[in-house]
Amino acid sequence: MIRIGIYGYGNLARGVECAVNATSDMELVAIFTRRDPKSVKINSENVPVVNTRDVLEWTDKIDVMVICGGSATDLPKQTPELAKYFNVVDSFDTHAKIPEHFANVNETALASGKVGVISVGWDPGMFSVNRMYSSAILPNGKDYTFWGKGVSQGHSDAIRRIEGVKDAKQYTIPVDSALEAVRSGKAPELTARQKHLRECFVVAEEGADLKRIEKEIVTMPNYFADYDTIVHFITEEELKRDHSGIPHGGFVIRSGKTGLNSENQHIIEYSLKLDSNPEFTASVLTAYARAAYRLNKKGESGCMTVFDIAPKYLSEKTFEELIKTML
Amino acid sequence: MIRIGIYGYGNLARGVECAVNATSDMELVAIFTRRDPKSVKINSENVPVVNTRDVLEWTDKIDVMVICGGSATDLPKQTPELAKYFNVVDSFDTHAKIPEHFANVNETALASGKVGVISVGWDPGMFSVNRMYSSAILPNGKDYTFWGKGVSQGHSDAIRRIEGVKDAKQYTIPVDSALEAVRSGKAPELTARQKHLRECFVVAEEGADLKRIEKEIVTMPNYFADYDTIVHFITEEELKRDHSGIPHGGFVIRSGKTGLNSENQHIIEYSLKLDSNPEFTASVLTAYARAAYRLNKKGESGCMTVFDIAPKYLSEKTFEELIKTML
Repeated sequence: MIRIGIYGYGNLARGVECAVNATSDMELVAIFTRRDPKSVKINSENVPVVNTRDVLEWTDKIDVMVICGGSATDLPKQTPELAKYFNVVDSFDTHAKIPEHFANVNETALASGKVGVISVGWDPGMFSVNRMYSSAILPNGKDYTFWGKGVSQGHSDAIRRIEGVKDAKQYTIPVDSALEAVRSGKAPELTARQKHLRECFVVAEEGADLKRIEKEIVTMPNYFADYDTIVHFITEEELKRDHSGIPHGGFVIRSGKTGLNSENQHIIEYSLKLDSNPEFTASVLTAYARAAYRLNKKGESGCMTVFDIAPKYLSEKTFEELIKTML
Repeated sequence: MIRIGIYGYGNLARGVECAVNATSDMELVAIFTRRDPKSVKINSENVPVVNTRDVLEWTDKIDVMVICGGSATDLPKQTPELAKYFNVVDSFDTHAKIPEHFANVNETALASGKVGVISVGWDPGMFSVNRMYSSAILPNGKDYTFWGKGVSQGHSDAIRRIEGVKDAKQYTIPVDSALEAVRSGKAPELTARQKHLRECFVVAEEGADLKRIEKEIVTMPNYFADYDTIVHFITEEELKRDHSGIPHGGFVIRSGKTGLNSENQHIIEYSLKLDSNPEFTASVLTAYARAAYRLNKKGESGCMTVFDIAPKYLSEKTFEELIKTML
C-alpha cells in the first residue's frame, strides 16, 4: 500500500481523500491542518488529523504527501519545504511562475532524494499534456484552449469585492461560434472577447445601486473589460439553489496540416465536462501521487511535471493488464 | 540531427517522409524497399533508395528506423529482426497479438541495447494513451471508443472480394445517438450495431446481380452481419471523384464518477478528425522516433509502448520552452 498524507484540508483535499479511499493500492494515513485538529471533521474513519507543526514526526510513515494549499501564497513555500522530507504532489497553477516554482522544488527534492510533482490537475495538467502531445504530433498547426462552462473562483471573488455586493458566482463560457471556427480548421486569430463570455449571478445588498454595480463589473480591467459580460441580479436563495455547484471544464483543440503541400488537415480535440472541479483535480493529483511513489522507488528524484511522467505510472493496473485492455 | 531510415515505401512511409522532412531536428538518410530501388520514385531529393537486403550496411548511419510494413505478416518479422541493429518504431495494430509482438521485440532490443517502440499511431497509439490516462484518473467509470467517420481498408477489401464487385469503399460511421448517450454520462451498454453504421460505395461489374451483391455484403459474418449496413452502387468515376481520400478519426470517451456517494460525474472526451489516416499515423510515428532516439541516448533499451514514454520526449521543443508555453 502507498501511504498518503494530505496537507491542508479544503475542497481539493476532500476530493483527494475521496479519491485515495476509492483506490485499492493507497492508504490515507494522516491529514495535516493549520487549524486546531479537534475542530476539523474529516470524511474518513480512523485517520488522524494532525497539526502541520508536527508533520516531521511523519517522515517515515508517509510515502507521498499531497499538498492541497493555494497557489498564491501556500504552495510556493510548502512544496519546496515539504520536498525536503517527503515525495510531494501539488496543483500549483500560476502559469507564469511555474519555472520559478519548478526550480525551487527541484533544488530541495534533489537534495533529499525525493520526487516532487508540481502543477498537476487539468490546467495545468491534463490540458497541458494534450497541448504537448498534439503539438508534437502536428508541429505545423495551432492550438486553442477554451475554458468552461464553469465557475471561476477568481472572477467570483472580484465581483464580491464590489461595494453593495453580498455574494456572486461567475461562469466562464466558451463562445460556440469560436469553437466551431477552430474545429473547422480555419485556425482563426481570436481575441479574448471572441473566445469567452462571462456570465455573472449577483446578490446585491438591499437598496444597493444595481446600475452602478453592473457598470463596475463590466468595466473592471483584466477581469471583465475585455469580455462580453452578462450580469443577472438574483436573490440569495436563488444563488444557493441554482449556483452552489463548482462545475468546470473546457476544450484543448489543435488543428494542423500534413502532406507535401499541407493539403491534409487534422483536428485533435480534448475536452472535459466536470461536475466538480476540485474533485476532478483531486483525482488527477491522486493518480500522480501513485506515479511519484513509483518513480521514487525506481531511484528518481527532483522536480517533475506531467510532461516528465510516462502514462503507465499513473494506473493501478499492471503493465500486462494495460497492454491487454487499453493499448 | 537524428538520422532516420524508412523501411518499406507505401502510403504510411510517404507520410513519415513528409513528417521527417518538416522537422528541423531530423534528417531522412535512406528509404529501404523490397522492390528494385530504381523503380521507386520518392518525394525527397538526394535521399538514396536502397534494397532491403543491403540494410545492414546502414547500421552506423541510421539512428532510428521507422518500419512501415503491414501488421499481418511484415511487422511480426521485421520489427524484432531490425531491432537487433537499429532503434525502431512501428505501427503494429493487431491488438490481440500485441503482447506476443512486445515480447519478441523486447528480446532482440534488450540484447542489442536498442529501443523498439511498437504499436504507435492513433489506435493503438493516441487513443490508447487517452484510454489509459482517463481510466487512471477516473477509475470508477467506463470508457468507449468510437471509430469514424472513416475508411476501413479491411472492410473495403472484403467487399472487393465479392463476385461481380469491381471496386468498393467502406465508411465506418459512429452512431450519433450512441455518442450522445455516452456523453450524457448514462454509461450505456452498447452492441456493435448500436455503436457504428457501415456505409458502402460499390462499383459493380457490368451486368452483375446487384441484389445478390448487396445481400452478400450485409450478411457477411464478422464484417457486416452485426451492423446496420447501407449499400450504394455508384460508377467508377463517382468512386474516384468522391471517395478517393483516406479520412478517418474517432472518439475516446470516459465517463466516471467521484465524490463520497459517487454524486459527481465527469466526462473526458478525446477525438480525432483526420483528412489522411496514413499521414496522421506517420506524424505520430515520427514523434515517437524522436523519443526512441532520446531514450536510447539516455541508456534505455528494450521494447516500449506509448504507455512507457513520457510526453516530453516527443517534442522538438526544449523542456524550458515546453514548461513556459504548454504547461
